[in-house]
Amino acid sequence: MNNLTIVKIGGNVIDNPDALHRFLTTFAGLPGYKILIHGGGKVATQVAEKLGVQTTMVEGRRITDRAMLDVVTMVYGGLVNKQIVAQLQALGLNAIGLTGADGGTVRSKKRAVGAIDYGFVGDIEEIDSAQIQYLTRKSLTPVFAPLTYDEQGNLLNTNADTMASAIAVEMALHDAVTLVYCFEKKGVLSNPDNDESVIAELTPASYADYKAQGVINKGMIPKLDNAFKALENKVKQVIICHADQLSEALQQKGVGTTLKL
Amino acid sequence: MNNLTIVKIGGNVIDNPDALHRFLTTFAGLPGYKILIHGGGKVATQVAEKLGVQTTMVEGRRITDRAMLDVVTMVYGGLVNKQIVAQLQALGLNAIGLTGADGGTVRSKKRAVGAIDYGFVGDIEEIDSAQIQYLTRKSLTPVFAPLTYDEQGNLLNTNADTMASAIAVEMALHDAVTLVYCFEKKGVLSNPDNDESVIAELTPASYADYKAQGVINKGMIPKLDNAFKALENKVKQVIICHADQLSEALQQKGVGTTLKL
Repeated sequence: MNNLTIVKIGGNVIDNPDALHRFLTTFAGLPGYKILIHGGGKVATQVAEKLGVQTTMVEGRRITDRAMLDVVTMVYGGLVNKQIVAQLQALGLNAIGLTGADGGTVRSKKRAVGAIDYGFVGDIEEIDSAQIQYLTRKSLTPVFAPLTYDEQGNLLNTNADTMASAIAVEMALHDAVTLVYCFEKKGVLSNPDNDESVIAELTPASYADYKAQGVINKGMIPKLDNAFKALENKVKQVIICHADQLSEALQQKGVGTTLKL
Repeated sequence: MNNLTIVKIGGNVIDNPDALHRFLTTFAGLPGYKILIHGGGKVATQVAEKLGVQTTMVEGRRITDRAMLDVVTMVYGGLVNKQIVAQLQALGLNAIGLTGADGGTVRSKKRAVGAIDYGFVGDIEEIDSAQIQYLTRKSLTPVFAPLTYDEQGNLLNTNADTMASAIAVEMALHDAVTLVYCFEKKGVLSNPDNDESVIAELTPASYADYKAQGVINKGMIPKLDNAFKALENKVKQVIICHADQLSEALQQKGVGTTLKL
Protein backbone atom coordinates (compact mmCIF):
# COMPACT_ATOMS: atom_id res chain seq x y z
CA MET A 1 0.00 0.00 0.00
CA ASN A 2 1.21 3.46 -0.90
CA ASN A 3 0.51 6.55 1.14
CA LEU A 4 -2.12 8.84 -0.34
CA THR A 5 -2.93 12.25 1.11
CA ILE A 6 -6.37 13.62 0.26
CA VAL A 7 -6.88 17.27 1.11
CA LYS A 8 -10.09 19.26 1.03
CA ILE A 9 -9.61 23.01 0.86
CA GLY A 10 -12.50 25.19 1.92
CA GLY A 11 -14.24 28.06 0.21
CA ASN A 12 -12.96 30.79 2.52
CA VAL A 13 -9.37 30.01 1.58
CA ILE A 14 -10.29 29.98 -2.11
CA ASP A 15 -11.77 33.46 -1.75
CA ASN A 16 -8.39 34.82 -0.60
CA PRO A 17 -5.78 34.68 -3.42
CA ASP A 18 -2.78 35.04 -1.07
CA ALA A 19 -4.02 32.38 1.35
CA LEU A 20 -4.82 30.09 -1.59
CA HIS A 21 -1.37 30.52 -3.08
CA ARG A 22 0.32 29.79 0.27
CA PHE A 23 -1.81 26.67 0.63
CA LEU A 24 -1.12 25.47 -2.92
CA THR A 25 2.63 25.97 -2.40
CA THR A 26 2.48 23.72 0.68
CA PHE A 27 0.24 21.19 -1.06
CA ALA A 28 2.53 21.00 -4.11
CA GLY A 29 5.45 20.22 -1.78
CA LEU A 30 3.80 17.32 0.08
CA PRO A 31 5.52 13.99 -0.53
CA GLY A 32 3.81 11.02 -2.16
CA TYR A 33 0.52 10.56 -3.97
CA LYS A 34 -2.12 13.19 -3.38
CA ILE A 35 -5.57 14.41 -4.36
CA LEU A 36 -7.11 17.85 -3.83
CA ILE A 37 -10.82 18.58 -3.50
CA HIS A 38 -11.85 22.21 -3.47
CA GLY A 39 -14.99 23.94 -2.29
CA GLY A 40 -16.78 26.71 -4.05
CA GLY A 41 -16.28 30.00 -2.31
CA LYS A 42 -18.16 33.21 -2.69
CA VAL A 43 -17.26 33.72 -6.35
CA ALA A 44 -20.25 31.63 -7.43
CA THR A 45 -22.58 33.85 -5.41
CA GLN A 46 -20.95 36.99 -6.85
CA VAL A 47 -21.14 35.71 -10.43
CA ALA A 48 -24.74 34.57 -9.89
CA GLU A 49 -25.66 38.02 -8.60
CA LYS A 50 -24.15 39.75 -11.62
CA LEU A 51 -25.96 37.33 -13.93
CA GLY A 52 -29.23 37.98 -12.13
CA VAL A 53 -29.42 34.45 -10.70
CA GLN A 54 -30.71 34.42 -7.13
CA THR A 55 -28.82 32.46 -4.46
CA THR A 56 -30.92 30.55 -1.92
CA MET A 57 -29.23 28.74 0.97
CA VAL A 58 -31.04 26.28 3.24
CA GLU A 59 -29.12 24.90 6.22
CA GLY A 60 -25.82 26.02 4.73
CA ARG A 61 -26.45 24.28 1.43
CA ARG A 62 -27.08 25.99 -1.85
CA ILE A 63 -30.36 25.36 -3.65
CA THR A 64 -29.32 24.59 -7.20
CA ASP A 65 -31.88 25.43 -9.86
CA ARG A 66 -30.98 25.12 -13.56
CA ALA A 67 -29.54 28.65 -13.77
CA MET A 68 -27.51 28.16 -10.58
CA LEU A 69 -26.23 24.81 -11.87
CA ASP A 70 -24.80 26.63 -14.89
CA VAL A 71 -23.18 29.18 -12.58
CA VAL A 72 -21.51 26.58 -10.34
CA THR A 73 -20.44 24.58 -13.40
CA MET A 74 -18.76 27.72 -14.72
CA VAL A 75 -17.26 28.85 -11.43
CA TYR A 76 -16.34 25.58 -9.67
CA GLY A 77 -15.64 23.46 -12.76
CA GLY A 78 -14.10 26.28 -14.80
CA LEU A 79 -12.72 29.31 -13.03
CA VAL A 80 -11.73 27.95 -9.62
CA ASN A 81 -10.63 24.50 -10.78
CA LYS A 82 -8.54 25.67 -13.73
CA GLN A 83 -6.90 28.52 -11.84
CA ILE A 84 -5.84 26.05 -9.14
CA VAL A 85 -4.53 23.61 -11.76
CA ALA A 86 -2.55 26.32 -13.59
CA GLN A 87 -1.04 27.54 -10.30
CA LEU A 88 -0.07 24.00 -9.30
CA GLN A 89 1.56 23.47 -12.71
CA ALA A 90 3.63 26.64 -12.13
CA LEU A 91 4.61 25.17 -8.74
CA GLY A 92 5.89 22.06 -10.50
CA LEU A 93 3.01 19.75 -9.65
CA ASN A 94 1.35 17.94 -12.55
CA ALA A 95 -2.27 18.58 -11.58
CA ILE A 96 -5.32 17.47 -13.56
CA GLY A 97 -8.64 19.18 -12.87
CA LEU A 98 -11.70 16.98 -12.75
CA THR A 99 -15.37 17.02 -12.00
CA GLY A 100 -16.95 13.69 -11.14
CA ALA A 101 -18.06 13.47 -14.78
CA ASP A 102 -14.47 13.44 -16.03
CA GLY A 103 -13.26 9.91 -16.49
CA GLY A 104 -16.53 8.78 -14.90
CA THR A 105 -14.80 9.20 -11.56
CA VAL A 106 -17.70 10.21 -9.27
CA ARG A 107 -21.25 9.33 -10.31
CA SER A 108 -24.22 10.50 -8.29
CA LYS A 109 -27.99 10.60 -8.28
CA LYS A 110 -30.13 13.71 -8.19
CA ARG A 111 -31.40 14.08 -4.66
CA ALA A 112 -35.07 13.14 -4.32
CA VAL A 113 -37.36 16.02 -3.48
CA GLY A 114 -38.36 15.81 0.19
CA ALA A 115 -39.27 18.61 2.59
CA ILE A 116 -36.71 20.67 0.67
CA ASP A 117 -36.13 20.58 -3.08
CA TYR A 118 -32.38 21.04 -3.36
CA GLY A 119 -32.60 21.10 -7.15
CA PHE A 120 -29.65 19.79 -9.15
CA VAL A 121 -27.78 18.37 -6.19
CA GLY A 122 -26.17 14.96 -6.38
CA ASP A 123 -25.76 12.29 -3.74
CA ILE A 124 -22.75 10.13 -4.55
CA GLU A 125 -23.51 6.62 -5.77
CA GLU A 126 -20.28 5.25 -7.22
CA ILE A 127 -16.61 6.22 -7.33
CA ASP A 128 -14.23 4.70 -9.87
CA SER A 129 -11.25 4.46 -7.55
CA ALA A 130 -9.29 2.36 -10.07
CA GLN A 131 -9.56 5.18 -12.60
CA ILE A 132 -8.44 7.75 -10.03
CA GLN A 133 -5.56 5.48 -9.04
CA TYR A 134 -4.54 5.14 -12.70
CA LEU A 135 -4.13 8.93 -12.81
CA THR A 136 -2.20 9.18 -9.55
CA ARG A 137 0.15 6.39 -10.66
CA LYS A 138 1.14 8.50 -13.67
CA SER A 139 2.26 11.23 -11.24
CA LEU A 140 -0.91 13.17 -11.97
CA THR A 141 -2.56 14.90 -9.04
CA PRO A 142 -6.35 14.98 -9.41
CA VAL A 143 -7.95 18.28 -8.39
CA PHE A 144 -11.69 17.77 -7.95
CA ALA A 145 -14.33 20.46 -8.27
CA PRO A 146 -17.46 19.75 -6.19
CA LEU A 147 -19.53 18.59 -9.16
CA THR A 148 -20.67 15.11 -10.12
CA TYR A 149 -22.87 13.66 -12.87
CA ASP A 150 -25.71 11.20 -13.26
CA GLU A 151 -26.45 8.53 -15.84
CA GLN A 152 -28.78 10.88 -17.70
CA GLY A 153 -25.93 13.26 -18.52
CA ASN A 154 -26.76 15.91 -15.91
CA LEU A 155 -24.09 17.64 -13.92
CA LEU A 156 -24.97 17.85 -10.24
CA ASN A 157 -23.77 20.16 -7.50
CA THR A 158 -22.19 18.11 -4.71
CA ASN A 159 -20.94 19.04 -1.26
CA ALA A 160 -17.14 19.15 -1.29
CA ASP A 161 -16.76 17.79 2.27
CA THR A 162 -18.89 14.78 1.38
CA MET A 163 -17.02 14.28 -1.87
CA ALA A 164 -13.66 14.32 -0.06
CA SER A 165 -14.86 11.76 2.48
CA ALA A 166 -16.40 9.49 -0.17
CA ILE A 167 -13.28 9.58 -2.35
CA ALA A 168 -11.08 8.89 0.71
CA VAL A 169 -13.17 5.83 1.62
CA GLU A 170 -12.94 4.37 -1.89
CA MET A 171 -9.24 5.12 -2.28
CA ALA A 172 -8.63 3.38 1.06
CA LEU A 173 -9.27 0.14 -0.83
CA HIS A 174 -5.98 0.74 -2.67
CA ASP A 175 -3.85 3.05 -0.54
CA ALA A 176 -3.07 4.07 3.04
CA VAL A 177 -5.18 7.25 3.05
CA THR A 178 -4.82 10.36 5.19
CA LEU A 179 -7.74 12.78 4.81
CA VAL A 180 -7.23 16.42 5.77
CA TYR A 181 -9.92 19.09 5.90
CA CYS A 182 -8.18 22.48 5.59
CA PHE A 183 -10.03 25.68 6.31
CA GLU A 184 -9.61 29.13 7.87
CA LYS A 185 -9.69 27.94 11.52
CA LYS A 186 -6.93 26.15 13.43
CA GLY A 187 -9.10 23.09 13.99
CA VAL A 188 -12.32 22.17 15.76
CA LEU A 189 -12.75 24.74 18.54
CA SER A 190 -14.05 24.11 22.06
CA ASN A 191 -14.94 27.81 22.26
CA PRO A 192 -16.13 29.31 18.96
CA ASP A 193 -15.09 32.77 20.19
CA ASN A 194 -11.51 31.70 20.88
CA ASP A 195 -9.54 30.73 17.77
CA GLU A 196 -6.84 29.14 19.93
CA SER A 197 -9.20 26.71 21.71
CA VAL A 198 -8.34 23.86 19.36
CA ILE A 199 -9.52 20.40 20.38
CA ALA A 200 -6.40 18.31 19.77
CA GLU A 201 -8.17 14.96 19.64
CA LEU A 202 -11.78 14.17 18.97
CA THR A 203 -13.45 10.77 19.49
CA PRO A 204 -17.06 9.82 18.69
CA ALA A 205 -17.80 10.11 22.44
CA SER A 206 -16.24 13.55 22.93
CA TYR A 207 -17.83 14.69 19.64
CA ALA A 208 -21.26 13.66 20.99
CA ASP A 209 -20.55 15.58 24.23
CA TYR A 210 -19.50 18.76 22.39
CA LYS A 211 -22.60 18.53 20.21
CA ALA A 212 -24.84 18.07 23.28
CA GLN A 213 -23.25 21.16 24.85
CA GLY A 214 -23.81 23.11 21.63
CA VAL A 215 -20.08 23.82 21.37
CA ILE A 216 -19.87 22.10 17.99
CA ASN A 217 -22.72 23.16 15.74
CA LYS A 218 -23.88 24.38 12.35
CA GLY A 219 -21.61 23.71 9.38
CA MET A 220 -19.09 21.83 11.51
CA ILE A 221 -21.50 18.96 12.13
CA PRO A 222 -21.82 17.65 8.54
CA LYS A 223 -18.04 18.13 8.14
CA LEU A 224 -17.32 16.02 11.23
CA ASP A 225 -19.96 13.44 10.32
CA ASN A 226 -18.19 13.04 6.98
CA ALA A 227 -14.82 12.89 8.70
CA PHE A 228 -15.84 10.18 11.19
CA LYS A 229 -17.49 8.22 8.41
CA ALA A 230 -14.15 8.12 6.57
CA LEU A 231 -12.35 6.93 9.69
CA GLU A 232 -14.92 4.18 10.21
CA ASN A 233 -14.28 3.02 6.64
CA LYS A 234 -10.56 2.19 6.55
CA VAL A 235 -9.23 5.74 6.11
CA LYS A 236 -6.10 5.67 8.25
CA GLN A 237 -6.09 9.20 9.59
CA VAL A 238 -8.38 12.24 9.53
CA ILE A 239 -7.18 15.73 10.46
CA ILE A 240 -8.96 19.09 10.51
CA CYS A 241 -6.62 22.07 10.44
CA HIS A 242 -5.83 25.57 9.21
CA ALA A 243 -4.77 25.78 5.56
CA ASP A 244 -1.49 27.38 6.69
CA GLN A 245 -0.72 24.41 8.97
CA LEU A 246 -1.23 21.54 6.54
CA SER A 247 2.40 20.49 6.52
CA GLU A 248 2.79 20.65 10.34
CA ALA A 249 -0.49 18.79 10.87
CA LEU A 250 0.66 15.96 8.60
CA GLN A 251 3.92 15.77 10.53
CA GLN A 252 1.82 15.50 13.71
CA LYS A 253 3.42 18.55 15.27
CA GLY A 254 0.52 19.10 17.62
CA VAL A 255 -1.55 21.38 15.42
CA GLY A 256 -5.12 20.90 14.23
CA THR A 257 -7.70 18.39 15.40
CA THR A 258 -7.02 14.71 14.92
CA LEU A 259 -10.00 12.36 14.88
CA LYS A 260 -9.73 9.01 16.66
CA LEU A 261 -12.16 6.12 16.92
CA MET B 1 0.38 2.30 -34.90
CA ASN B 2 -3.19 2.63 -33.77
CA ASN B 3 -5.79 4.75 -35.51
CA LEU B 4 -6.64 7.96 -33.70
CA THR B 5 -9.45 10.28 -34.81
CA ILE B 6 -9.15 13.88 -33.67
CA VAL B 7 -12.27 15.97 -34.18
CA LYS B 8 -12.66 19.70 -33.76
CA ILE B 9 -16.23 20.87 -33.29
CA GLY B 10 -17.00 24.49 -34.00
CA GLY B 11 -18.74 27.12 -31.94
CA ASN B 12 -21.88 27.34 -34.09
CA VAL B 13 -22.69 23.70 -33.41
CA ILE B 14 -22.06 24.19 -29.69
CA ASP B 15 -24.58 27.05 -29.68
CA ASN B 16 -27.32 24.68 -30.89
CA PRO B 17 -28.16 22.03 -28.24
CA ASP B 18 -29.93 19.69 -30.71
CA ALA B 19 -27.11 19.88 -33.27
CA LEU B 20 -24.55 19.37 -30.50
CA HIS B 21 -26.36 16.31 -29.16
CA ARG B 22 -26.61 14.77 -32.65
CA PHE B 23 -22.90 15.39 -33.16
CA LEU B 24 -21.93 13.95 -29.76
CA THR B 25 -24.02 10.85 -30.44
CA THR B 26 -22.10 10.26 -33.69
CA PHE B 27 -18.76 11.06 -32.06
CA ALA B 28 -19.42 8.66 -29.16
CA GLY B 29 -20.08 5.90 -31.70
CA LEU B 30 -16.86 6.30 -33.71
CA PRO B 31 -14.58 3.28 -33.48
CA GLY B 32 -11.07 3.43 -32.03
CA TYR B 33 -9.15 6.02 -30.09
CA LYS B 34 -10.39 9.57 -30.30
CA ILE B 35 -9.96 13.11 -29.05
CA LEU B 36 -12.43 16.01 -29.20
CA ILE B 37 -11.49 19.68 -29.27
CA HIS B 38 -14.31 22.17 -28.93
CA GLY B 39 -14.57 25.84 -29.77
CA GLY B 40 -16.21 28.48 -27.70
CA GLY B 41 -19.47 29.58 -29.17
CA LYS B 42 -21.53 32.61 -28.41
CA VAL B 43 -22.20 31.71 -24.79
CA ALA B 44 -18.96 33.42 -23.73
CA THR B 45 -20.06 36.63 -25.43
CA GLN B 46 -23.50 36.40 -23.81
CA VAL B 47 -22.10 35.72 -20.34
CA ALA B 48 -19.53 38.50 -20.78
CA GLU B 49 -22.31 40.92 -21.72
CA LYS B 50 -24.36 40.04 -18.64
CA LEU B 51 -21.26 40.43 -16.46
CA GLY B 52 -20.54 43.81 -18.01
CA VAL B 53 -17.35 42.61 -19.72
CA GLN B 54 -16.95 44.05 -23.19
CA THR B 55 -16.16 41.75 -26.13
CA THR B 56 -13.67 43.04 -28.71
CA MET B 57 -12.92 40.98 -31.83
CA VAL B 58 -10.04 41.75 -34.20
CA GLU B 59 -9.78 39.69 -37.40
CA GLY B 60 -12.13 37.07 -36.00
CA ARG B 61 -10.11 36.63 -32.83
CA ARG B 62 -11.20 37.64 -29.39
CA ILE B 63 -9.14 40.19 -27.47
CA THR B 64 -8.71 38.61 -24.07
CA ASP B 65 -8.22 41.04 -21.21
CA ARG B 66 -8.13 39.78 -17.62
CA ALA B 67 -11.91 39.97 -17.19
CA MET B 68 -12.53 38.20 -20.50
CA LEU B 69 -9.99 35.52 -19.58
CA ASP B 70 -12.08 34.74 -16.50
CA VAL B 71 -15.21 34.57 -18.67
CA VAL B 72 -13.71 32.15 -21.20
CA THR B 73 -12.21 30.07 -18.39
CA MET B 74 -15.70 29.78 -16.90
CA VAL B 75 -17.54 29.19 -20.15
CA TYR B 76 -15.08 27.13 -22.23
CA GLY B 77 -13.31 25.32 -19.39
CA GLY B 78 -16.40 24.98 -17.19
CA LEU B 79 -19.82 25.18 -18.76
CA VAL B 80 -19.22 23.99 -22.33
CA ASN B 81 -16.51 21.44 -21.52
CA LYS B 82 -18.31 19.80 -18.60
CA GLN B 83 -21.69 19.71 -20.33
CA ILE B 84 -20.07 17.92 -23.28
CA VAL B 85 -18.29 15.48 -20.95
CA ALA B 86 -21.50 14.70 -19.01
CA GLN B 87 -23.42 14.14 -22.26
CA LEU B 88 -20.70 11.84 -23.60
CA GLN B 89 -20.75 9.85 -20.35
CA ALA B 90 -24.52 9.40 -20.77
CA LEU B 91 -23.80 8.17 -24.32
CA GLY B 92 -21.46 5.53 -22.91
CA LEU B 93 -18.18 7.23 -23.78
CA ASN B 94 -15.68 7.71 -20.97
CA ALA B 95 -14.75 11.32 -21.67
CA ILE B 96 -12.33 13.41 -19.64
CA GLY B 97 -12.47 17.19 -20.00
CA LEU B 98 -9.17 19.01 -20.16
CA THR B 99 -7.66 22.40 -20.70
CA GLY B 100 -4.03 22.48 -21.76
CA ALA B 101 -3.15 23.08 -18.09
CA ASP B 102 -4.61 19.72 -17.05
CA GLY B 103 -1.93 17.09 -16.95
CA GLY B 104 0.41 19.70 -18.46
CA THR B 105 -0.89 18.58 -21.83
CA VAL B 106 -0.68 21.82 -23.87
CA ARG B 107 1.69 24.55 -22.74
CA SER B 108 1.82 27.91 -24.48
CA LYS B 109 3.38 31.34 -24.28
CA LYS B 110 1.49 34.60 -23.98
CA ARG B 111 1.52 36.20 -27.40
CA ALA B 112 3.93 39.14 -27.61
CA VAL B 113 2.28 42.51 -28.06
CA GLY B 114 2.72 43.63 -31.67
CA ALA B 115 0.45 45.85 -33.77
CA ILE B 116 -2.41 44.26 -31.82
CA ASP B 117 -2.37 43.37 -28.13
CA TYR B 118 -4.39 40.17 -28.03
CA GLY B 119 -4.14 40.07 -24.23
CA PHE B 120 -4.15 36.68 -22.53
CA VAL B 121 -3.83 34.64 -25.70
CA GLY B 122 -1.44 31.72 -25.89
CA ASP B 123 0.64 30.44 -28.77
CA ILE B 124 1.32 26.75 -28.31
CA GLU B 125 4.89 25.82 -27.36
CA GLU B 126 4.78 22.20 -26.20
CA ILE B 127 2.35 19.31 -26.21
CA ASP B 128 2.82 16.31 -23.94
CA SER B 129 1.63 13.72 -26.42
CA ALA B 130 2.81 10.84 -24.20
CA GLN B 131 0.53 12.08 -21.43
CA ILE B 132 -2.42 12.37 -23.82
CA GLN B 133 -1.66 8.90 -25.15
CA TYR B 134 -1.60 7.53 -21.59
CA LEU B 135 -5.18 8.76 -21.19
CA THR B 136 -6.42 7.40 -24.52
CA ARG B 137 -4.85 4.01 -23.76
CA LYS B 138 -7.01 3.76 -20.65
CA SER B 139 -10.09 4.14 -22.89
CA LEU B 140 -10.44 7.74 -21.83
CA THR B 141 -11.45 10.22 -24.51
CA PRO B 142 -9.86 13.63 -23.93
CA VAL B 143 -12.20 16.56 -24.58
CA PHE B 144 -10.15 19.75 -24.86
CA ALA B 145 -11.42 23.25 -24.17
CA PRO B 146 -9.54 25.94 -26.13
CA LEU B 147 -7.44 27.06 -23.17
CA THR B 148 -3.76 26.52 -22.45
CA TYR B 149 -1.35 27.65 -19.73
CA ASP B 150 2.11 29.12 -19.39
CA GLU B 151 4.98 28.43 -17.02
CA GLN B 152 3.96 31.37 -14.83
CA GLY B 153 0.64 29.73 -13.96
CA ASN B 154 -1.53 31.84 -16.28
CA LEU B 155 -4.35 30.34 -18.26
CA LEU B 156 -4.36 31.54 -21.87
CA ASN B 157 -7.10 31.68 -24.47
CA THR B 158 -6.09 29.61 -27.50
CA ASN B 159 -7.66 29.19 -30.91
CA ALA B 160 -9.39 25.81 -31.08
CA ASP B 161 -8.53 25.18 -34.76
CA THR B 162 -4.85 25.74 -34.02
CA MET B 163 -5.03 23.57 -30.92
CA ALA B 164 -6.60 20.72 -32.90
CA SER B 165 -3.93 20.91 -35.58
CA ALA B 166 -1.07 21.11 -33.07
CA ILE B 167 -2.39 18.15 -31.05
CA ALA B 168 -2.87 16.14 -34.25
CA VAL B 169 0.72 16.80 -35.32
CA GLU B 170 2.14 15.67 -31.96
CA MET B 171 -0.12 12.62 -31.71
CA ALA B 172 1.01 11.61 -35.22
CA LEU B 173 4.32 10.66 -33.58
CA HIS B 174 2.46 7.79 -31.87
CA ASP B 175 -0.65 7.04 -33.91
CA ALA B 176 -2.11 7.09 -37.42
CA VAL B 177 -4.07 10.31 -37.06
CA THR B 178 -7.14 11.52 -38.93
CA LEU B 179 -8.05 15.14 -38.19
CA VAL B 180 -11.59 16.32 -38.87
CA TYR B 181 -12.85 19.89 -38.62
CA CYS B 182 -16.62 19.74 -38.11
CA PHE B 183 -18.75 22.84 -38.44
CA GLU B 184 -22.12 24.06 -39.73
CA LYS B 185 -21.20 23.94 -43.46
CA LYS B 186 -20.89 20.86 -45.66
CA GLY B 187 -17.22 21.55 -46.35
CA VAL B 188 -15.10 24.21 -48.00
CA LEU B 189 -17.38 25.93 -50.52
CA SER B 190 -16.45 27.14 -54.02
CA ASN B 191 -19.41 29.54 -53.85
CA PRO B 192 -20.05 30.95 -50.37
CA ASP B 193 -23.70 31.61 -51.33
CA ASN B 194 -24.32 27.98 -52.31
CA ASP B 195 -24.13 25.54 -49.41
CA GLU B 196 -23.98 22.62 -51.85
CA SER B 197 -20.87 23.86 -53.70
CA VAL B 198 -18.54 21.67 -51.67
CA ILE B 199 -14.96 21.33 -52.92
CA ALA B 200 -14.41 17.58 -52.66
CA GLU B 201 -10.63 17.74 -52.71
CA LEU B 202 -8.30 20.60 -51.91
CA THR B 203 -4.56 20.69 -52.64
CA PRO B 204 -2.10 23.45 -51.73
CA ALA B 205 -2.23 24.56 -55.40
CA SER B 206 -6.03 24.67 -55.67
CA TYR B 207 -6.19 26.31 -52.21
CA ALA B 208 -3.86 29.06 -53.48
CA ASP B 209 -6.08 29.53 -56.54
CA TYR B 210 -9.28 29.80 -54.50
CA LYS B 211 -7.61 32.29 -52.18
CA ALA B 212 -6.39 34.37 -55.12
CA GLN B 213 -9.95 34.41 -56.52
CA GLY B 214 -11.28 35.47 -53.11
CA VAL B 215 -13.53 32.39 -52.99
CA ILE B 216 -11.88 31.17 -49.81
CA ASN B 217 -11.49 34.00 -47.34
CA LYS B 218 -11.92 35.27 -43.79
CA GLY B 219 -12.13 32.68 -41.02
CA MET B 220 -11.64 29.80 -43.45
CA ILE B 221 -8.05 30.80 -44.18
CA PRO B 222 -6.54 30.21 -40.70
CA LYS B 223 -8.60 26.99 -40.47
CA LEU B 224 -7.18 25.70 -43.76
CA ASP B 225 -3.66 26.90 -42.93
CA ASN B 226 -3.89 24.84 -39.74
CA ALA B 227 -5.32 21.90 -41.65
CA PHE B 228 -2.57 21.86 -44.30
CA LYS B 229 0.07 22.27 -41.61
CA ALA B 230 -1.18 19.07 -39.98
CA LEU B 231 -1.06 17.21 -43.30
CA GLU B 232 2.50 18.40 -43.91
CA ASN B 233 3.46 17.01 -40.48
CA LYS B 234 2.62 13.31 -40.68
CA VAL B 235 -1.13 13.59 -40.00
CA LYS B 236 -2.54 10.92 -42.31
CA GLN B 237 -5.79 12.53 -43.34
CA VAL B 238 -7.54 15.89 -42.90
CA ILE B 239 -11.25 16.39 -43.59
CA ILE B 240 -13.51 19.43 -43.25
CA CYS B 241 -17.20 18.58 -43.05
CA HIS B 242 -20.63 19.26 -41.57
CA ALA B 243 -21.09 18.10 -37.98
CA ASP B 244 -24.00 15.92 -39.13
CA GLN B 245 -21.79 14.14 -41.69
CA LEU B 246 -18.86 13.17 -39.51
CA SER B 247 -19.46 9.46 -39.76
CA GLU B 248 -19.97 9.49 -43.57
CA ALA B 249 -16.92 11.70 -44.08
CA LEU B 250 -14.76 9.25 -42.13
CA GLN B 251 -16.09 6.41 -44.24
CA GLN B 252 -15.10 8.45 -47.32
CA LYS B 253 -18.62 8.44 -48.68
CA GLY B 254 -17.98 11.50 -50.80
CA VAL B 255 -19.04 14.15 -48.33
CA GLY B 256 -17.01 17.05 -47.01
CA THR B 257 -13.70 18.41 -48.23
CA THR B 258 -10.63 16.19 -48.10
CA LEU B 259 -7.23 17.86 -48.11
CA LYS B 260 -4.43 16.34 -50.17
CA LEU B 261 -0.80 17.31 -50.53
